[in-house]
Amino acid sequence: MLTIDRIRHAAEVLSSVVRRTDMIRAPRINCDSEIYLKTENLQVTGSFKVRGAYYKISQLTEEEKKRGVIACSAGNHAQGVALGATKNGIKSLICLPAGAPISKIEATKRLGAEVCLVNGVYDDAYAKALELRDQHGYTFVHPFDDELVIAGQGTIGLEILEQLPDVEAVIVPIGGGGLISGVALALKTLKPDVKIYGVQAAGAPSMEVSVKENKIIRLPSVSTIADGIAVKEPGVNTFKYCCEYVDEIASITDEEVATAILTLIEQHKIIAEGAGAIAVAAAMLNKFPIKGKKTVCLVSGGNVDVPILSRVVKTGLSHVGRSVALKVELPNKPGKLREILAIIAEHGSNIQRIKLKDSSTYGGYAEIRLETRNHEHISEIKAALNEQGYKIL
Amino acid sequence: MLTIDRIRHAAEVLSSVVRRTDMIRAPRINCDSEIYLKTENLQVTGSFKVRGAYYKISQLTEEEKKRGVIACSAGNHAQGVALGATKNGIKSLICLPAGAPISKIEATKRLGAEVCLVNGVYDDAYAKALELRDQHGYTFVHPFDDELVIAGQGTIGLEILEQLPDVEAVIVPIGGGGLISGVALALKTLKPDVKIYGVQAAGAPSMEVSVKENKIIRLPSVSTIADGIAVKEPGVNTFKYCCEYVDEIASITDEEVATAILTLIEQHKIIAEGAGAIAVAAAMLNKFPIKGKKTVCLVSGGNVDVPILSRVVKTGLSHVGRSVALKVELPNKPGKLREILAIIAEHGSNIQRIKLKDSSTYGGYAEIRLETRNHEHISEIKAALNEQGYKIL
Repeated sequence: MLTIDRIRHAAEVLSSVVRRTDMIRAPRINCDSEIYLKTENLQVTGSFKVRGAYYKISQLTEEEKKRGVIACSAGNHAQGVALGATKNGIKSLICLPAGAPISKIEATKRLGAEVCLVNGVYDDAYAKALELRDQHGYTFVHPFDDELVIAGQGTIGLEILEQLPDVEAVIVPIGGGGLISGVALALKTLKPDVKIYGVQAAGAPSMEVSVKENKIIRLPSVSTIADGIAVKEPGVNTFKYCCEYVDEIASITDEEVATAILTLIEQHKIIAEGAGAIAVAAAMLNKFPIKGKKTVCLVSGGNVDVPILSRVVKTGLSHVGRSVALKVELPNKPGKLREILAIIAEHGSNIQRIKLKDSSTYGGYAEIRLETRNHEHISEIKAALNEQGYKIL
Repeated sequence: MLTIDRIRHAAEVLSSVVRRTDMIRAPRINCDSEIYLKTENLQVTGSFKVRGAYYKISQLTEEEKKRGVIACSAGNHAQGVALGATKNGIKSLICLPAGAPISKIEATKRLGAEVCLVNGVYDDAYAKALELRDQHGYTFVHPFDDELVIAGQGTIGLEILEQLPDVEAVIVPIGGGGLISGVALALKTLKPDVKIYGVQAAGAPSMEVSVKENKIIRLPSVSTIADGIAVKEPGVNTFKYCCEYVDEIASITDEEVATAILTLIEQHKIIAEGAGAIAVAAAMLNKFPIKGKKTVCLVSGGNVDVPILSRVVKTGLSHVGRSVALKVELPNKPGKLREILAIIAEHGSNIQRIKLKDSSTYGGYAEIRLETRNHEHISEIKAALNEQGYKIL
């Protein structure tokens, strides 16, 4: 059974390895609360995962260390285990699904791990990792359902309390539940009146469903842009801790997550991956009773493939009405496009792209992408176009 | 004449207003040096500018405060002055060129400033600001050539020394020169052996040229993606300080800046604008003799319009060979595209986009955008395609 002393020991072991990440006041996330960001995306390896992985590996016996460790992950856990093993001077082998982004494969290799690409999806890579473990005697480092891993993640709870002693609520992303288990255990032990809120992706609500049903539920499939928390089934330990220590769990759609990522980029100049932004999304949407409360959003990681980031930002911009694509019917007469552009310019919108398409001998349409202020602004522009006789398709 | 005591006073005044931004170890920027990032992009308002602006405004007489302040800027200075004025409880009016990005206009308004959009470019907005100052008796807050503004920026030098007492070199972006003047004065006074290196955009090297010629030179035009440091002419004061305290000045191309922005996103999960990333670019490219030295790169700001950010990231990805668009000749026979795709897949590259274009009855070409590892990887793929008889156009 995990104790606060174990978490304190983890903090000691980790002190020379991990960064004590900054806590940043974030007034524009939610004006009714005093929001802070605990920026674990600025952690070494770009996520909190190195805490649990390093601590787990540091506690192996000499014999186990000699044989090395194995893990299965396409993301943050891979990098955490790789760095944890390298810093402990031992060998690590990471099984990744072959389709993983090149950037993540390279990052894992750079941290000193051997990488084994497995055809198929995560489950196939997982099966392969267990097979190799059995063959070679490696220690399997579980991404979340391991008490020592949980103790490592719990060190974030200690830091939050040191950095903001009068914290009242903490919002934490949940995938398998390792992070929230450690953080909740630390905080509820040291300051029982702190509220702990968990957030899942709407497309992967395994812990939310399990806690509600009061038994571990395995989802048939999961789908979310927050790939770091796309977990089908909670762990046995993490389920138990969540039932005991977590006050409420909510879930968040992909579009809402994209909007939170965009907000963190624009307002706070930090990159969060989907899982990393989801606690912020929950605060923005008032998913929990945090009004007037000193609330910490745990920004768990920032490892997002850059091409994916571009798409996410686009989704976020559209969602909040900062960008829109209008299809405007374009009669085949001189000067019509100019007229449309004049209407748009009068309304203070910048044009980002235009495509003209012929669809008939009568004419065609213009597909115009605009930079706009918000949904109201878009409505105004549409109304003005309609008024001048331009049909929006 | 500016003194270290003035900078210390500024630090005192600013202590309740600005963030003491984090210093982050950045091992992957340049392996031969010990690089740290001073993250002023994580400052309130997203840039260091609030330091100088707030301090300047705080030192106005009651009479001057009553009349309010005016400034001219499309960017960080606007937000710094807006916040500085609002926090001092006085009125601010900011003249902006009408074409400024909506996001920057909105941000300035949100911080409490009145915004005056002026048709034309920066120079027109500047002329308008002086006109309004003369009409209404506002105090004009200069973006850089003001001793109190410089004193405010100098507080970063004090923080660097506190956070990294054995610092050996500091690399600082130069636009008008206000930031580097303050930082250099503080550091050279307190620790004369610290090297101070300045960096300019290759398309706006006004200070570099002026120092070389030993007189203030006005460039006829400037052009760079680092819009925060696109300044045609150094200030009288800042020129003097740069001549006295700055050890070397180098300049950096837009592509190199884009690569540094990309590196900061991927490796450190922070957003820097062009000016903010330029010191990092200089460190990556070994522009200064920093080998083996504890070196701080001053990341001055992170206010970059999101649509521009997407383009910059694309430029960076192409520059380092992480992305490429190939035009491959496509004979008009069944199965040819599949063959091409097979060759690409065999080389471990992900396809991001394909466009097919007919150019003749014989056939056409495929425009294929690929995710790649580096320039070598691109060469391998091209060679393999050539070998199989596919011509790259």
